Amino acid sequence: MNIEILAIGDELLIGQTINTNASWLGQEFSKIGARVTRSVVVADDKDRISEALDTIYPETNVIIITGGLGPTKDDITKHTLCTYFGTHLEIHPPTLAKIETYFAARKRPMLETNIQQAALPVACEILPNNYGTAAGMLFEKNGRYYVSLPGVPYEMQGIVTEELIPILTKRFQLKAMYHYTALTQGIGESFLAERIRDWEDRIRERGFGLAYLPSPGLVKLRITSFEGKEDQAEIMQFFQELTSRLPEAVFGYESDTLPDVSGRVLKKHQLTIGTVESCTSGLLAQQLTSISGASDYFMGSLLTYSNDLKHRLCDVSIDAILSDGAVSERVALEMAEKGAKKLGVDVCISTTGVAGPSGGTADKPVGLVWIGLSITGKTVARKFQFGDNRERNIQMTVLSALNWLRYELEQR
Amino acid sequence: MNIEILAIGDELLIGQTINTNASWLGQEFSKIGARVTRSVVVADDKDRISEALDTIYPETNVIIITGGLGPTKDDITKHTLCTYFGTHLEIHPPTLAKIETYFAARKRPMLETNIQQAALPVACEILPNNYGTAAGMLFEKNGRYYVSLPGVPYEMQGIVTEELIPILTKRFQLKAMYHYTALTQGIGESFLAERIRDWEDRIRERGFGLAYLPSPGLVKLRITSFEGKEDQAEIMQFFQELTSRLPEAVFGYESDTLPDVSGRVLKKHQLTIGTVESCTSGLLAQQLTSISGASDYFMGSLLTYSNDLKHRLCDVSIDAILSDGAVSERVALEMAEKGAKKLGVDVCISTTGVAGPSGGTADKPVGLVWIGLSITGKTVARKFQFGDNRERNIQMTVLSALNWLRYELEQR
Repeated sequence: MNIEILAIGDELLIGQTINTNASWLGQEFSKIGARVTRSVVVADDKDRISEALDTIYPETNVIIITGGLGPTKDDITKHTLCTYFGTHLEIHPPTLAKIETYFAARKRPMLETNIQQAALPVACEILPNNYGTAAGMLFEKNGRYYVSLPGVPYEMQGIVTEELIPILTKRFQLKAMYHYTALTQGIGESFLAERIRDWEDRIRERGFGLAYLPSPGLVKLRITSFEGKEDQAEIMQFFQELTSRLPEAVFGYESDTLPDVSGRVLKKHQLTIGTVESCTSGLLAQQLTSISGASDYFMGSLLTYSNDLKHRLCDVSIDAILSDGAVSERVALEMAEKGAKKLGVDVCISTTGVAGPSGGTADKPVGLVWIGLSITGKTVARKFQFGDNRERNIQMTVLSALNWLRYELEQR
Repeated sequence: MNIEILAIGDELLIGQTINTNASWLGQEFSKIGARVTRSVVVADDKDRISEALDTIYPETNVIIITGGLGPTKDDITKHTLCTYFGTHLEIHPPTLAKIETYFAARKRPMLETNIQQAALPVACEILPNNYGTAAGMLFEKNGRYYVSLPGVPYEMQGIVTEELIPILTKRFQLKAMYHYTALTQGIGESFLAERIRDWEDRIRERGFGLAYLPSPGLVKLRITSFEGKEDQAEIMQFFQELTSRLPEAVFGYESDTLPDVSGRVLKKHQLTIGTVESCTSGLLAQQLTSISGASDYFMGSLLTYSNDLKHRLCDVSIDAILSDGAVSERVALEMAEKGAKKLGVDVCISTTGVAGPSGGTADKPVGLVWIGLSITGKTVARKFQFGDNRERNIQMTVLSALNWLRYELEQR
């Protein structure tokens, strides 16, 4: 199945909005084995839209049109498609009912322009929008599908996931591909590939696909079955093997995040947590509390940016700071251990490092970070050497700390 | 001047990379008064690229091609353009010298593929790349310009800013537009427009352009002169008037950020700062330390997420918590005032609020936030009512706190 994407909107052309819809669609259609062959952005203009529809590649099966719907755009896409397919608008009662419910739920008055959103082309199939007022439209002409979707990302995504993909999968008799993704932290992509080469070979021999999806600090591993969900159990076995081989790296699956996973394991063991942060300066606490309900286990933190506060707030010994330096194993250990007492928590993570760009020395270069971890009285510190980018170093410290915490607690 | 953008790359089509180049180019060309009329992405394929070049709009003056350069792409754009313009490649000595310098500086060995990056079409004008190895190329045919640029954003941006825009401004005799932007926080776009209507009217009467550029929590105001930099003084006068009318909202100009501006004003008054955070849970400290050199004024923080720690770490009175609640003026005041003492800092900001999504009551709905500000012993608290999105509420709290700090210190 070959797909083209046509986005409509002056705001995209002048760069006020980034066309994230195109990349999301590219990802989703790749997952079902379709190929996006071109992506075009044109102005909110009837002639430009018609011209784009006239010049799509001959082998294109589906053209996805995003944007140009709704009152502020004068519903230009809807009117253009009516002309293009020689049809006219009529009020579509189920869509009108949906819009009325939408406004009633929000206790907002409904205007004539809102009612007009229920006026839809007679010659198309309606794709219901469960997240907004502009319905999706599916036209068919000479075996080719023309799909018009709203430009608001979550509305567009809802219609694609819930309505469009099931329809296309059925009509193009696409094999239902099945994907499952494991999430890893702490091992770079090439080292990871090296360590699991035989595992990867067996996956490929079995006829599954394997994709490495790196993002800053993380590598996702996605296994794809081209036969569908019936291979799920077998894929899970591969992931179980991966997890038992690299338990320190594999922290979760699919949409898990490190704050989620650490929060779950803290809750499971009924442990409270706090942090004593220097180089991360609050980002670790902020990540731990980024999920609702974190107050069940997160109590608070000491951000001891200055050496004076490391001593005054957290009782780090002046001797440790003077003889070993603020960025040292000893200070990281004291921060975690004494921090746990000061905060009255079961678990305390400490961070101290040279985030950069300045402050590096031959002994303690930019990117050097010590993380301390104290769990119910037992405290350990680990050394990390990251790169030369300040923001990245801080982020890597947070990810490494959360993943280490997760791993240690899972071993209990 | 009408511009089209053609981006080349499978990674854009499958959504692995978001086409931020197109939005950056849209913004930059809007600034010089050019109009981007279409933006297209095609695959790394000779026929697709040629076809795209054959079908551009008749009125297009300049087509910008990004990507498809470099060894991993087989320099497909370069070869396609050679065929398209009936020319051939030859080593371009100045470019070769640049590449040699580039590798020498990084102490990395130069491969044959790197040398081949200096092989450039004879029939084009070379646009030097000061940030990488793939040079830009400018072809002219029938008065239309075809520009090929690398896909790496900072390399592409460097060539556009330093080489291409000056050339286009000259050849198309574009009026050198002049822009200057003021940054505001704390007043929504429509309220802002209401309050400065007469100011806006006078700007427009004078023949200048005014754009409202909203982003989460901030509104930027950009004045444009279509005559060029000679109008700078007059534009500055408009901005001075704006600042004196809304000193609490206008926090800076151009690329200023709130952490920058607050840091500068703290340094100027030689004041140290710390924070006592509840609902922002470290994000305020993290923002304050996001700029290098923050250790000159930022000392540390208490993140008192639990009520117990508000009392134990920061001496907030149990009576205040019990009678007024953790989210209250009294607790915000005590957090800021007692926090300043505990941390030994001149300035202390406190935050306590209901970030949501849970925890709201009729009296204290989700989005209610109290911010306390203690400056050299004098402490005030202010109430804010934000919305129902947790992440947004936390971000708005941080922006509001930094801007309030900036305003108070500027008054001194």
